Amino acid sequence: MGLAEQWEWPPTYDKSYSPPCGEPYWFRSRETMSEGAREAMILSRIQDIMAYAYENAPFYRQKWDAAGIHPSSVRSLEDFERVPPVTKAELRADQEAHPPFGSYLCVDPREVKHVHGTSGTTGRPTAFGIGRADWAAIANAHARVMWAMGIRPSDTVFVAAFFSLYMGSWGALIGAERLGARVFPFGAGTPGQTRRAIDWMRQMRPTVFYGTPSYALRIAEVAEADGIDLRDVGLRRLFFSGEPGASVPAVRARIERLYGAAVFDSGSMAEVSPWMSLGETEGSTGMLCWQDIVYTEVVSPTSFARVPYGSEGTPVYTTLERTSQPMIRLLSYDLTRWEAGPSRCGRTYPSLPQGIYGRIDDMFTIRGENIYPSAIEAALTNVAGYGGEHRILISRASAMDELTVQVEHDEHVAASPAAVDAWTTDVANKLRTVLGVRAKVIPLPSGTLERAEFKARRVVDVRNLQNTK
Amino acid sequence: MGLAEQWEWPPTYDKSYSPPCGEPYWFRSRETMSEGAREAMILSRIQDIMAYAYENAPFYRQKWDAAGIHPSSVRSLEDFERVPPVTKAELRADQEAHPPFGSYLCVDPREVKHVHGTSGTTGRPTAFGIGRADWAAIANAHARVMWAMGIRPSDTVFVAAFFSLYMGSWGALIGAERLGARVFPFGAGTPGQTRRAIDWMRQMRPTVFYGTPSYALRIAEVAEADGIDLRDVGLRRLFFSGEPGASVPAVRARIERLYGAAVFDSGSMAEVSPWMSLGETEGSTGMLCWQDIVYTEVVSPTSFARVPYGSEGTPVYTTLERTSQPMIRLLSYDLTRWEAGPSRCGRTYPSLPQGIYGRIDDMFTIRGENIYPSAIEAALTNVAGYGGEHRILISRASAMDELTVQVEHDEHVAASPAAVDAWTTDVANKLRTVLGVRAKVIPLPSGTLERAEFKARRVVDVRNLQNTK
Repeated sequence: MGLAEQWEWPPTYDKSYSPPCGEPYWFRSRETMSEGAREAMILSRIQDIMAYAYENAPFYRQKWDAAGIHPSSVRSLEDFERVPPVTKAELRADQEAHPPFGSYLCVDPREVKHVHGTSGTTGRPTAFGIGRADWAAIANAHARVMWAMGIRPSDTVFVAAFFSLYMGSWGALIGAERLGARVFPFGAGTPGQTRRAIDWMRQMRPTVFYGTPSYALRIAEVAEADGIDLRDVGLRRLFFSGEPGASVPAVRARIERLYGAAVFDSGSMAEVSPWMSLGETEGSTGMLCWQDIVYTEVVSPTSFARVPYGSEGTPVYTTLERTSQPMIRLLSYDLTRWEAGPSRCGRTYPSLPQGIYGRIDDMFTIRGENIYPSAIEAALTNVAGYGGEHRILISRASAMDELTVQVEHDEHVAASPAAVDAWTTDVANKLRTVLGVRAKVIPLPSGTLERAEFKARRVVDVRNLQNTK
Repeated sequence: MGLAEQWEWPPTYDKSYSPPCGEPYWFRSRETMSEGAREAMILSRIQDIMAYAYENAPFYRQKWDAAGIHPSSVRSLEDFERVPPVTKAELRADQEAHPPFGSYLCVDPREVKHVHGTSGTTGRPTAFGIGRADWAAIANAHARVMWAMGIRPSDTVFVAAFFSLYMGSWGALIGAERLGARVFPFGAGTPGQTRRAIDWMRQMRPTVFYGTPSYALRIAEVAEADGIDLRDVGLRRLFFSGEPGASVPAVRARIERLYGAAVFDSGSMAEVSPWMSLGETEGSTGMLCWQDIVYTEVVSPTSFARVPYGSEGTPVYTTLERTSQPMIRLLSYDLTRWEAGPSRCGRTYPSLPQGIYGRIDDMFTIRGENIYPSAIEAALTNVAGYGGEHRILISRASAMDELTVQVEHDEHVAASPAAVDAWTTDVANKLRTVLGVRAKVIPLPSGTLERAEFKARRVVDVRNLQNTK
């Protein structure tokens, strides 16, 4: 293992290190070692971190004591599966009792040098406190993942995401800085900023774009209205996080077509740093789980034990580099399926071929069928004449759940009432094939529905409103 | 001079250096040396930079050749006064001819690692390209200026300004990082963000606030409407840039009262890095010109030669640390008056006791009197019953210029029509005393006028609309 790839706890990486541009791996040995060798390293790191958290964090000590688990009893990754998972609600409650960073903060509060937080609009938000060395380790990890997407120091990275509480934009920024690329932190979210983003992209000709998939589509829509072809910008790559869209084949294909550039998905959770510990690479099928950065277990949502490769489950994350607020088995409630490595890029990490394709709690059930909003999005994006936006309404008339989808059509469909009718029937048939249940389709002219400037929220479940709790 | 204070070109500072917390100066020797000794150092640096720019930047070479000035001919700071100043229009035209960074870029474009730009909504914006070493030098300089405001590693800095093209927020961020403070880059500008800023300040209890004065007042107004006393947050200091307000005594007093904390002004121009090379210190009267970071000359707007201390003029800036796009005698068109040092803080820099109090091009003339919008703002902020916002309308009826000021009053004034009348007369008399001309005052209930979320634009000159050019 190269010197730069040091495997110490706590981690401190050489900030001057950078691989040669022709080298496909930032840390070759770590990324290509056998799964067995990696798991031995991870187990040893987990033992370090659990001992560290047990000593420094009352939150973990009390939780594990209550479960009868002591760090010294974890002698295998199978043992680790019995460590009780942490939920976001537990973190929130702990911060409420121990403000501002919770009793899972393992360092002196004076060592917290960067503060961010959840953007939740109801209840107390959760604060993320990050130490200075952690911030540097995050930058290093993001540089690794971005390097694997083919991003190099000669690239210009245009960051079109909101710089505030949301972590994705900051992660892309410090990853690009650490990698040595040129970065243009343009931001997003204020009135008029989408048009200015287009102007600046045309003027500055970035080669890499970062944002949310919804916002990339929104930019493309505004550009199209102004008669601008975004393929002329000269982007080579777009990478995304914050939403599952970039792993949805139809959404990915649409973005790749509109921008004439390759799409890479990445992500994990705001509580988990780095925030791109799942990330696609050149030649990979789906996001890889960068296990030596954040140990990801895809688990059964009931037993919290790992499911076999090839199976569906929910990711549970354990940070291997974070000293300030380590996450040890944080439960995501996301939904995915994992496969064993290696990928075509040569990395031996497990992969998520379909990305994160739903949430256990977003999933809804209509007449016995489990429906994922991302499946509806994928189906609609594939329909010719789709106008770019839709809404999913779930209601209950008498005892029967009803699924209604408002779908925008484009101007070609709008040419005649008959064309709209035929298109509506076609959409309803396609949805039924994909979902297994009948959906009522309401056609709308393109531009009727509000566009997401950030993360799209497309599901309205009115059953809760209809039933008093 | 301490080792950390190295005076080399190009500058490279020890990133691990930090003074002891009890030390009032980041670079003691540089900040307290005699003016004569400093000017000798600055002259030598100017000679280095002019030679560097002449060799690397066709923009400067052509401009100086046309003026018959060669770098070797600059043997004194008086000689330097004959170097023709640069205007923003020249920079814009040069970038248009030599995209994207202009022929005043002195480094290989591949060395530009951070891109920002002007936020102008008309015409081609100007791009700022900043090299990696320059970025580090900017952070170091901002840490120096913030240290002089009394900010220390134990502080938490809440940055409530938009992270996009605007440089002030980024400067506050990297300055706080370099200084070793905790930073919470909250941002600004999106719907609903002001209330969330208040919630987060109450939860995280920052000790330092950065933003624009307008936005600090906007936050205070929203807090007041919600019955929240911002003095409970526990802020010790607020520092500002982007607008002249913080140097206006009445605005400063209002902010200090609302937040229960001390106000510090800072600034310069987006084209000039660092962006806080003018900055107040503990014990200073007005912003100091940190001459060893950016050499500031307050000059006659016609001869471009320095005016004597005690006189009014416009600042011209020369960056002493920037290698990527050095600014050499950039004309600000701002208006200020400077005084000789030292200040009570012991620094020997010249000072701007009233800050930047106007712009040569914002100043307008009514019936022969020069009027500065900041003078109107200062007068109104001092009036009891002021409702928090106003607009200045300049019109021309027949041959006579008319000055109309729409002024909001508070709810106490609104109690009766007679009270409004009396208040209006009082405001008109006060404005006449301060301005020397009569202004028509139109009273409005508080909340009528739109609030600035960023920089306030309060002057509407309709004379241009009334006269075809």
